[in-house]
Amino acid sequence: MNKELMTKRIAENLEHLKQFTATPNKGCTRLPFTKEARQAADYLKTIMKEAGLEVKEDEAGNVFGFIYGSDTSLPCVMMGSHFDSVVNGGDYDGIAGVICAIEVARQLKNTNPKRTFVAAAFCDEEGMRFGTGYFGSGAILGNRTPEYCRTFTDKNDVSIYDAMLEYGLDPEKIENAKWKDNSIGYFIEAHIEQGPVLHAENTQIGLVDCIVGIDRYMVTVHGRSDHAGTTPMNMRLDAVDAATKVISKIADWARETDDGSVATVGYIKTIPGGMNIVAEACEFTVDIRSRNIENLEKISAKLHDALEHEVKAMGGSFDIQNKLAITPVNLDKSMLHMMEESCKNHNFSYRYMHSGAGHDALEIGQVIPTAMLFVPSKDGRSHCMVEHTEYSHFGNAALIMTELAEKLTSN
Amino acid sequence: MNKELMTKRIAENLEHLKQFTATPNKGCTRLPFTKEARQAADYLKTIMKEAGLEVKEDEAGNVFGFIYGSDTSLPCVMMGSHFDSVVNGGDYDGIAGVICAIEVARQLKNTNPKRTFVAAAFCDEEGMRFGTGYFGSGAILGNRTPEYCRTFTDKNDVSIYDAMLEYGLDPEKIENAKWKDNSIGYFIEAHIEQGPVLHAENTQIGLVDCIVGIDRYMVTVHGRSDHAGTTPMNMRLDAVDAATKVISKIADWARETDDGSVATVGYIKTIPGGMNIVAEACEFTVDIRSRNIENLEKISAKLHDALEHEVKAMGGSFDIQNKLAITPVNLDKSMLHMMEESCKNHNFSYRYMHSGAGHDALEIGQVIPTAMLFVPSKDGRSHCMVEHTEYSHFGNAALIMTELAEKLTSN
Repeated sequence: MNKELMTKRIAENLEHLKQFTATPNKGCTRLPFTKEARQAADYLKTIMKEAGLEVKEDEAGNVFGFIYGSDTSLPCVMMGSHFDSVVNGGDYDGIAGVICAIEVARQLKNTNPKRTFVAAAFCDEEGMRFGTGYFGSGAILGNRTPEYCRTFTDKNDVSIYDAMLEYGLDPEKIENAKWKDNSIGYFIEAHIEQGPVLHAENTQIGLVDCIVGIDRYMVTVHGRSDHAGTTPMNMRLDAVDAATKVISKIADWARETDDGSVATVGYIKTIPGGMNIVAEACEFTVDIRSRNIENLEKISAKLHDALEHEVKAMGGSFDIQNKLAITPVNLDKSMLHMMEESCKNHNFSYRYMHSGAGHDALEIGQVIPTAMLFVPSKDGRSHCMVEHTEYSHFGNAALIMTELAEKLTSN
Repeated sequence: MNKELMTKRIAENLEHLKQFTATPNKGCTRLPFTKEARQAADYLKTIMKEAGLEVKEDEAGNVFGFIYGSDTSLPCVMMGSHFDSVVNGGDYDGIAGVICAIEVARQLKNTNPKRTFVAAAFCDEEGMRFGTGYFGSGAILGNRTPEYCRTFTDKNDVSIYDAMLEYGLDPEKIENAKWKDNSIGYFIEAHIEQGPVLHAENTQIGLVDCIVGIDRYMVTVHGRSDHAGTTPMNMRLDAVDAATKVISKIADWARETDDGSVATVGYIKTIPGGMNIVAEACEFTVDIRSRNIENLEKISAKLHDALEHEVKAMGGSFDIQNKLAITPVNLDKSMLHMMEESCKNHNFSYRYMHSGAGHDALEIGQVIPTAMLFVPSKDGRSHCMVEHTEYSHFGNAALIMTELAEKLTSN
């Protein structure tokens, strides 16, 4: 393998893809089932064909490129990521993993693999447009239905269903996107870290052994609206006072764990929000992530207990709504070990780590043996236009994953 | 004087004014320099003219009605309050004092006063829209400039300056709103208590001997926006975590005082506000009130110290803007004594008390002899749509203040 040549091709492909954005000069905005998504999908098909792959677009808008193995009765090896983006996002999140997969397929073409290798470009992992996520990777597992497509709409009230029709797909046939049980033997994904750890440590490769679980809550603390000047402190039901006595502890609960659990309050709203009015309500979100379900449960329990305590002391009430509950997914140790051996052979610096963000591997990893590899994100920045990763890192990823794919497809 | 007739007219005027709200059926929302403010101002001019007053709108949007005295060289007697409201506020806060002043002027018209009497409707006492306050009453004292108008903006980034232009005023001429030194001899204001004391005690009249001082701040804690899943806790600059570690202590600092000082955070905003994004900034307001300036200073110092401490620990920075700094004001004992005598003569129950709310009398009382009268607020509720005061209380207020105004204008 010629890593320099691989890197060069990956760079050319990613540079070419930068034009397929709805926000030129303001980062990548490639929402699912749009003109930009179609342009990117068509380009992916073109380079897949050039690489010698047999190309197929499925009923969910996913694009696949096949290198058939000598024994097509064996479960295949699938590698890929997504080709959509957030609004004003970066040029590498998702799509770089697709391009790496195509490059791996190109390398495998002349190895006479026993198993079939599939390079996958998934549609709508981000869920930005319809407030969902993992659309394409969910579809290949049979988790998407016409009813699902009708349920979710974008901010212009266009449903997934109608957007698919506009894009040239038949949502009534979405269930045909499901792959037969046991037809996929392994799933592997390369992705930018979207966090600061590898870049800060100057480490080349992250071997992802776990994708964290998420508990996400919307909390509303109810007090009573009063004049901020005339209501004595002991006669108030101050929703902000009670809510912030809880919020101020949440990050500390995560810091107290020993497994890198994180907890974030990113949104607070006070109602009515006047500077001279005791707030009658304070809404806030809590996003808790951990590789250990025990810590998700522990922090959630502390949240409930603190709310009970502070809201009782205040004299009001509270609502708490669970908006998201995802269990942590452990990735496949044997595949990670194979990649570790490759890193050692090439003298790449590496570390085991967990992923704090969801990925197609999170959806697929729940049912199929899965492994992930991260490359550094400059300053950990992602989901914004300053997102950056040196192309050489993608060359490293393609090299490591080619060696993994060779092993997986050879028997 | 016919108190029943006075009450009836006051009731009719206040009922008519209820329509000038941006939130019909959801309380009074009459923000300064809006369509609703214009409608209310025009209605006030109409009833002032009907009451025989000479009407003038000044460069700050204040509306005045004049009963000229026989000796116009003498400093006048001014009575009034404000005609703006908070968002989703009540129908009596401020505006009832304006209507009482017009009623008092009507009574004075036939008494051949020696001094001129001025009924005043002040613009933007609440400061709800621009995060300020006492705009109109400050302007008549010469405390407002074009630069001031450019400095403060509403949540849509519209400055006072531009809002005034839109309203039909010339902000470059704001300083013309200043009254000549010594042209106002006395200022008197009737207002609902906006607190629970009079209603709880079943007392008809509150004679206000002191208005608390106010320190009001807008604080912005600056951190860094990061992915809520991928950024380890020890690599974050979480603006919400630092800000709420301060906010959660503020009410307690007021509780620790022994003079009924109060402190309120009514507004918090997180930026960008995504539930899966560590906030890069957290804005909040702090409103501190006390009858003792030492406690204002003590709580402000604790706020600054806590910000220094928590923001340093977080690794970010903060801005703190003093939006309002008003020292406590003692009101005019001789005028209060005259009102006390009237209460006794009419067998009204009364008490001396301080005001925990700021009023136009607070701004004006710093330079001009000032007195205030309170009427009960049902359950002390104000700045909300359930605010309520029986109209007969406003009749009582108009009666007492007419007698006071007669005495003040007669020599």
